[in-house]
Amino acid sequence: MRPYELSVSAAADAIRARRLSPVELVDSVLDRIEQVEPHLGAYVAVTAEQARGAARAAEREAVAGRLRGPLHGIPMGLKDLIDAAGTATTASSQVRDGHRADADSTVAGRLAAAGAVLVGKTHTHEFAYGLITPQTRNAWDEGRVAGGSSGGSAVAVAAGAAGFALGTDTGGSIRVPAALNGVVGLKPTYGLVPRHGVTSLSWSLDHVGPLTRTVADAALVLPVLAGHDPRDPASLTTRPADPLPPCGTDLTGLRIGVPRNYYFDRVATDVEVVVRRAIERLEALGARLVEVEIPMTRYIQATQWGLMVPEATAYHERTLRTTPDRYTDDVRVLLEAGELLGAGDYLRAQRARTLMRQAWARLFDEVDVIAAPTVPTVATPTGQDTLTWPDGTVESVSDAYVRLSAPANITGVPSLSLPVGEDHAGQDHTGLPIGMQLIGRPFGEPDLLRVGHAYERSAPARTLAPPAGGRAGLEPPRGPGTREPEATALR
Amino acid sequence: MRPYELSVSAAADAIRARRLSPVELVDSVLDRIEQVEPHLGAYVAVTAEQARGAARAAEREAVAGRLRGPLHGIPMGLKDLIDAAGTATTASSQVRDGHRADADSTVAGRLAAAGAVLVGKTHTHEFAYGLITPQTRNAWDEGRVAGGSSGGSAVAVAAGAAGFALGTDTGGSIRVPAALNGVVGLKPTYGLVPRHGVTSLSWSLDHVGPLTRTVADAALVLPVLAGHDPRDPASLTTRPADPLPPCGTDLTGLRIGVPRNYYFDRVATDVEVVVRRAIERLEALGARLVEVEIPMTRYIQATQWGLMVPEATAYHERTLRTTPDRYTDDVRVLLEAGELLGAGDYLRAQRARTLMRQAWARLFDEVDVIAAPTVPTVATPTGQDTLTWPDGTVESVSDAYVRLSAPANITGVPSLSLPVGEDHAGQDHTGLPIGMQLIGRPFGEPDLLRVGHAYERSAPARTLAPPAGGRAGLEPPRGPGTREPEATALR
Repeated sequence: MRPYELSVSAAADAIRARRLSPVELVDSVLDRIEQVEPHLGAYVAVTAEQARGAARAAEREAVAGRLRGPLHGIPMGLKDLIDAAGTATTASSQVRDGHRADADSTVAGRLAAAGAVLVGKTHTHEFAYGLITPQTRNAWDEGRVAGGSSGGSAVAVAAGAAGFALGTDTGGSIRVPAALNGVVGLKPTYGLVPRHGVTSLSWSLDHVGPLTRTVADAALVLPVLAGHDPRDPASLTTRPADPLPPCGTDLTGLRIGVPRNYYFDRVATDVEVVVRRAIERLEALGARLVEVEIPMTRYIQATQWGLMVPEATAYHERTLRTTPDRYTDDVRVLLEAGELLGAGDYLRAQRARTLMRQAWARLFDEVDVIAAPTVPTVATPTGQDTLTWPDGTVESVSDAYVRLSAPANITGVPSLSLPVGEDHAGQDHTGLPIGMQLIGRPFGEPDLLRVGHAYERSAPARTLAPPAGGRAGLEPPRGPGTREPEATALR
Repeated sequence: MRPYELSVSAAADAIRARRLSPVELVDSVLDRIEQVEPHLGAYVAVTAEQARGAARAAEREAVAGRLRGPLHGIPMGLKDLIDAAGTATTASSQVRDGHRADADSTVAGRLAAAGAVLVGKTHTHEFAYGLITPQTRNAWDEGRVAGGSSGGSAVAVAAGAAGFALGTDTGGSIRVPAALNGVVGLKPTYGLVPRHGVTSLSWSLDHVGPLTRTVADAALVLPVLAGHDPRDPASLTTRPADPLPPCGTDLTGLRIGVPRNYYFDRVATDVEVVVRRAIERLEALGARLVEVEIPMTRYIQATQWGLMVPEATAYHERTLRTTPDRYTDDVRVLLEAGELLGAGDYLRAQRARTLMRQAWARLFDEVDVIAAPTVPTVATPTGQDTLTWPDGTVESVSDAYVRLSAPANITGVPSLSLPVGEDHAGQDHTGLPIGMQLIGRPFGEPDLLRVGHAYERSAPARTLAPPAGGRAGLEPPRGPGTREPEATALR
């Protein structure tokens, strides 16, 4: 097994046992980047030289017996909205030409202090304002979208081009590409991970969180990110219990809510079947399933847009005037539309959010975790704009991708997406990954990680994207990473 | 001394000692209303019959030894934005023609349960959207404005036409009329007193609180009002310590902030002199004076308006379309203007508020209480629209009245206004009351009440407005209520 194929926890074990050096690991990932990047386009910039320097420093510390923790020497990608001192934060936009961050964002600083090694900045849909990430291709099928806006991070992790990565999530931007590329994405509780030094899309909805190949890895990264920083006005001083070291698979006593409305409406059959099977597995592990009614679903879309659009426009106010032509058309149009929204629209969205938060809080009196699909369909072919549902409804691909993830942004509750299978291969594609979303109460991350880890232990899945460019002539990865995915058994 | 002249605490003592019956007290106040109301116009509606019934019930309980607390049998007025079951809530507006509240607001219910007796609903500037209350005349001078928007409540209390009253305060609407009529007004911490059943002007700035003749009385009313009610989404579950029974006058150890900027700028000389003397008195009582710099003053006005205007318009959206002609012109124009504000204006105001809250929080690391004028000038003659300051600045009367009180609405910190003297009588008027504002940290009400009570114990002032219609041919009240006000000594 080559080092880049290792999960964070496996690599951390190997480094701790001196079976692997940070230099070997980082070199392996940099080689992998070189191999897959021409096919995938996950990175805006690869920081190979600095990464090798940091790896050597991590190795010296390891040799001296000074390990900083489980992320010591682990190669990571940062979505290119996240400041890392000395690199540009391009937001994948020409608007940021010539940018250079003078200081680390809170999260980049905390990860560096924990020993993680930055290998590059990953592509985002421009300024995170979209669900596609057009520069990047899906890790499982180059003819399909990566999803977004943290598309580069999801694809890099899926392809072994980073041990883990950070994304941001305003309406689903961590979880959507995680689901579409078969990796794990965690949007934490609003206010848990500080956003100082992270380019804002919509500050009342923005979250920073990890993308990893396993739930166990997410549990290693989250504690490094979490904790108060007064430089983010929304940062909470409350600190949840650190996630328990996830180990057991017994879910006895846990109540899992299964939505009777909304989350399984207008969802592709394969997605519904695979997610319902995954939920049955949670029941087999001891969880009690409880049917729940999702409240105020009629307000979700208007609330998400009513909050996001004016906040995004306010952030871009100046550059929208000085350099409008440097935005791509789709983003500029959205930003300009935001200038037309009235104060009444925005405040009605805020009021709806308050009521939705209260209604969701009551939901978590009945259950500990809600399980649902992350997105209603697998990755769509590049260039496809709309989906037509069996009931005749036509929906834009972006609306579909954000539909099931937005409630957790509006309400601020944590949500974890993990891969639970693939759809049926068709004439036009081999099987594509399907994600299940676990949603919890505020600060319920330990519950989500416990459930997600129990699932992945009981149903070990492929941890790297298959062929990963193989269809583009690359050798498929070898070793345990190519185990047949569990979900094939579900068909 | 006639019963209507008694403060709440004096009346409560007399009822407890069986020297006074609730029926005598309520009858005395109803007689007083009949006497002064033609001159003052404080009430929208007097609920004499129900009040007499409630008084008889309170008397039966008293005779049976069942006293509900210090408000048992005390006559009160409620600003006519506050629902009381079976009465109309007119908001002093024709828009509410035919209205009838089916249920008590939270505060009306709590006061009734505490034994207080509703004698009537008091005038507000229409829908609380103004600082004048044109239906009502100043209790000290009928040719001058009552102030607003809780003008009726302030005038009723000042004239002995209620034992105490409730008002609402969005930019100063409790404290401004309190100051202009020589009574005490308390705007509590945002979220402390639930607003369920109270007509909203601007929900993120609205507060409900008491108007009383003494600070000691405010300390009796506040605990009845405070405490969580989930029907107000902004209601806090935190409950502050009940105010200590205010008794001593020793302020040793207390740090009182004296603003070096903003609060004494463009303030009438008499107001400045009287308030600075009151602050010196606090120092003489043992407090340590600390000069403080008020932060972000440049943003106060824009933030107050940027929040209030769209929130007010959103509340009136429907009636503004169906019955625009039923609004008075000044209020309709303000409401219509709100339709033109963009989402960007509103969210910039919200961001400014977040920063102001943080900056003010730091201020209260240095001091416990800030002392300042409540309003920059005494009550203006009816019909006067503007003030011209010595530096040539022309300011609308409304802008002037709201200028010094708005910061506590924006930041949500508690503020108590108490009478500290009168201005020099001039050719056109006898001395008019001047208010000092004590501002505290969130949940700092006990500090404010302690300081205010220490002041009023050390400098006993007139507790009823002088002549109170005397200039209109009424007999002046007799007894301790007509003590020469302290501030005359200051001239």
